[in-house]
Amino acid sequence: MSTRIRLTPEDRREQLLELGVAMIGERPIDEFSIDALAHDASISRGLLYHYFGSKQDFVRAVLRRMADGLFEATAPVDDPSLEVRLRVSIQAYLRWVGANLTGYVSFLQEAQRGNNEVRDIYLSARAALTDRIFDSCSAEELAAYGISDLPRVRMFARSWAAMVEDVVLNWINDPQDLSEDEIVASLTRSLAGVLGAVSA
Amino acid sequence: MSTRIRLTPEDRREQLLELGVAMIGERPIDEFSIDALAHDASISRGLLYHYFGSKQDFVRAVLRRMADGLFEATAPVDDPSLEVRLRVSIQAYLRWVGANLTGYVSFLQEAQRGNNEVRDIYLSARAALTDRIFDSCSAEELAAYGISDLPRVRMFARSWAAMVEDVVLNWINDPQDLSEDEIVASLTRSLAGVLGAVSA
Repeated sequence: MSTRIRLTPEDRREQLLELGVAMIGERPIDEFSIDALAHDASISRGLLYHYFGSKQDFVRAVLRRMADGLFEATAPVDDPSLEVRLRVSIQAYLRWVGANLTGYVSFLQEAQRGNNEVRDIYLSARAALTDRIFDSCSAEELAAYGISDLPRVRMFARSWAAMVEDVVLNWINDPQDLSEDEIVASLTRSLAGVLGAVSA
Repeated sequence: MSTRIRLTPEDRREQLLELGVAMIGERPIDEFSIDALAHDASISRGLLYHYFGSKQDFVRAVLRRMADGLFEATAPVDDPSLEVRLRVSIQAYLRWVGANLTGYVSFLQEAQRGNNEVRDIYLSARAALTDRIFDSCSAEELAAYGISDLPRVRMFARSWAAMVEDVVLNWINDPQDLSEDEIVASLTRSLAGVLGAVSA
């Protein structure tokens, strides 16, 4: 008996993206299989190409979906303290990376191996995360934190995010004697340290 | 007339490594050609394999040589001020990356695309650079800078180096309104900002 379910095109597209995100969590992007995906979604390859155009287009849409998931997971909470908002977002980042480790590492590797379209998705996702810090604060609030909203400071914020990524991946791999609270607190303080250094 | 020159095995090995470093500055590692190298060095492929075992072994030896070059280029100067020593080394790093850009970017891409042996060369080179900061200072000097010599602090120093790498590559690509002096001063200050955050 067929279990094929009739979905609207929009719902079908969503379902395929979710399956794609799950698949990227299980195997390297190189081994991403349209056949396996069509099988899992109980649709034909042809229909999959109808929705996404090509395997490359589909992979990019899946990576964008993953980046959107990270962006949503790390949204600033409603708290008057910038320090608290940063800490909560950094903790959410750390937990999201832990929960999506295989897929995220695949994404990073693909971005760094010279695939320029994937690299652009990665860089714009990273810029969105750090620009949000500036855009969710008043100039006074940033100034009280020792930070100016200048292009050079936003540039350093993006590179600070590269440092955070490196710290978090290393910490997940080998936590040493550092608790989650300690690593989150250290990373939160480091933002002021880095952005203060270039705001001066 | 043959221009082949008789070299000692040690000198020949050095010559081949230098040619390899130059070649990595000119083309992606994927396109690294043993034939072209043997031609440039006026030796046979067989002799090249005699010195290095395999193409992979040769590429790794070349990348280690490149990493050694960076380590030497950024050696701390003899100055009583830690801040001055850091600034001079960071400036030397920035200039070395600018002068070795193509090869260095190839190295990074190879390290990040999942080639574990190259990644190990990259990570140990990076750890050597940041461990030297701690090893060239007394505990008192570090303390005066707000830094403790703890494993967690050394871990953050390695990730700070990832941030520096990202800043420097971005800056070389698009300097915006930042002079070399400004970028070097900002990066120097950021080290204390980051390591102070995790020393606390």
